[in-house]
Amino acid sequence: MARFKLILEYDGAAYHGWQVQPGLTTIQGLLQEALGRLAGAPVAVTGAGRTDAGVHALGQVASFEATLRLSPAVLQRALNAQLPRDIVVVQAAEAAPDFDARFSARSKRYRYTLLRRAYPSAWHAGRVLFVPYALDTTAMIEAASTLVGCHDFSAFRAGTCAARSPVRTVHQAQWRAEGDFWHFEITANAFLQHMVRILVGTLLEGGGGRRNPASLTDLLASRDRRRAGKTAPPHGLCLVEVHYEPGDSTRGLVESPG
Amino acid sequence: MARFKLILEYDGAAYHGWQVQPGLTTIQGLLQEALGRLAGAPVAVTGAGRTDAGVHALGQVASFEATLRLSPAVLQRALNAQLPRDIVVVQAAEAAPDFDARFSARSKRYRYTLLRRAYPSAWHAGRVLFVPYALDTTAMIEAASTLVGCHDFSAFRAGTCAARSPVRTVHQAQWRAEGDFWHFEITANAFLQHMVRILVGTLLEGGGGRRNPASLTDLLASRDRRRAGKTAPPHGLCLVEVHYEPGDSTRGLVESPG
Repeated sequence: MARFKLILEYDGAAYHGWQVQPGLTTIQGLLQEALGRLAGAPVAVTGAGRTDAGVHALGQVASFEATLRLSPAVLQRALNAQLPRDIVVVQAAEAAPDFDARFSARSKRYRYTLLRRAYPSAWHAGRVLFVPYALDTTAMIEAASTLVGCHDFSAFRAGTCAARSPVRTVHQAQWRAEGDFWHFEITANAFLQHMVRILVGTLLEGGGGRRNPASLTDLLASRDRRRAGKTAPPHGLCLVEVHYEPGDSTRGLVESPG
Repeated sequence: MARFKLILEYDGAAYHGWQVQPGLTTIQGLLQEALGRLAGAPVAVTGAGRTDAGVHALGQVASFEATLRLSPAVLQRALNAQLPRDIVVVQAAEAAPDFDARFSARSKRYRYTLLRRAYPSAWHAGRVLFVPYALDTTAMIEAASTLVGCHDFSAFRAGTCAARSPVRTVHQAQWRAEGDFWHFEITANAFLQHMVRILVGTLLEGGGGRRNPASLTDLLASRDRRRAGKTAPPHGLCLVEVHYEPGDSTRGLVESPG
């Protein structure tokens, strides 16, 4: 038995998210099936982040234990030959015996991308949220910065979130412009269910004038999900990168929004 | 009646190409249907380039005449609301009475994109040709440069090509690297059916060692389609830009391969 680490890139549009669910096509499920065929025995895969249905990844990380008489390079090719073309293993490596994609992760970076202009994009459809209306970007940049630090994110978690503690440490939260795209990038030690999407939904309501953009601090203090904004749609969200111990960062290899 | 000019971006994967064909879904067909609904009468649309099934566009240009009580900006919004999300009007304008997207075009630029690395891309799947094998890039760059000029491209046209003359003037033909992507960019006064795809197929066979890469000049002279390479698949190809009279260039607004 050896332990392996994979870095995965996927377009989540066709899938019911990362996590195996009975009767539904999921990324974890397809990966476990492919690995099971290669190993000739069931393989249980752990993912760094349980991306929702429709959410994408450029740098998802998965770990598993299996008896495989394959080098990591051959394993990568064998998996890519079996997986659909919208799920790709961009890197495969042997991992330390105690490596766990989820529990060894120090932090993760998500990106939510808006397309801010009068007309949508055929090229980037399904990867960005089209926002043709005006936004108070100054207020949104200001509001994002107040997220940095250790906070109780109860107001920004789904009702179905199973995490024991609602406290998370946000290392970085900012908006970055790239032509007509506007990326919300957030790095935290861990995330609650729907946390990024509820934050973006709330920031958008503030930027669009539908709520006081300065009220994010009050919202956090309220710990009340009903006071936060709508959950932004999944297709603008992407798990970009998972950080492990120094020297083991797993930056996605393709970073452009396209 | 007024004359209009549209710039269109589309992902061709779902369509049987630009040109209307009975019983098939085409980009021209969908556009004519949408315009017909807006005008309350049939509208005939002319496209600058008749892109094949599966070929994409960032800067296709279309022209038509219609009686529309809409400003170009409102026309753009109305069309984008009706068209599927993989076809987008990126610009709409009133055009001179004699403007014709096809016959007024001075030149067009196509791009064919390879992904040169050991593993494919989930993010760019369907937009690039995955080439995991080694290429003699020096020979391919050299061969591309010999295409510039006025040549008889009979060896590089489909059997079904209906053009009267096989002579075309290539203004620019070169390979451009962008990370793991390798773009073949070609600008010519006009193109024969499948011309870019047969050129790329032939260049790839030369670069992969399956034919003498220096033989492109001989191939042109032979005027024999059977001596050229296979037609490269459509999904790597994109109509990037159509040039008209100075001051009327129609560069696509989103240029990244993503």
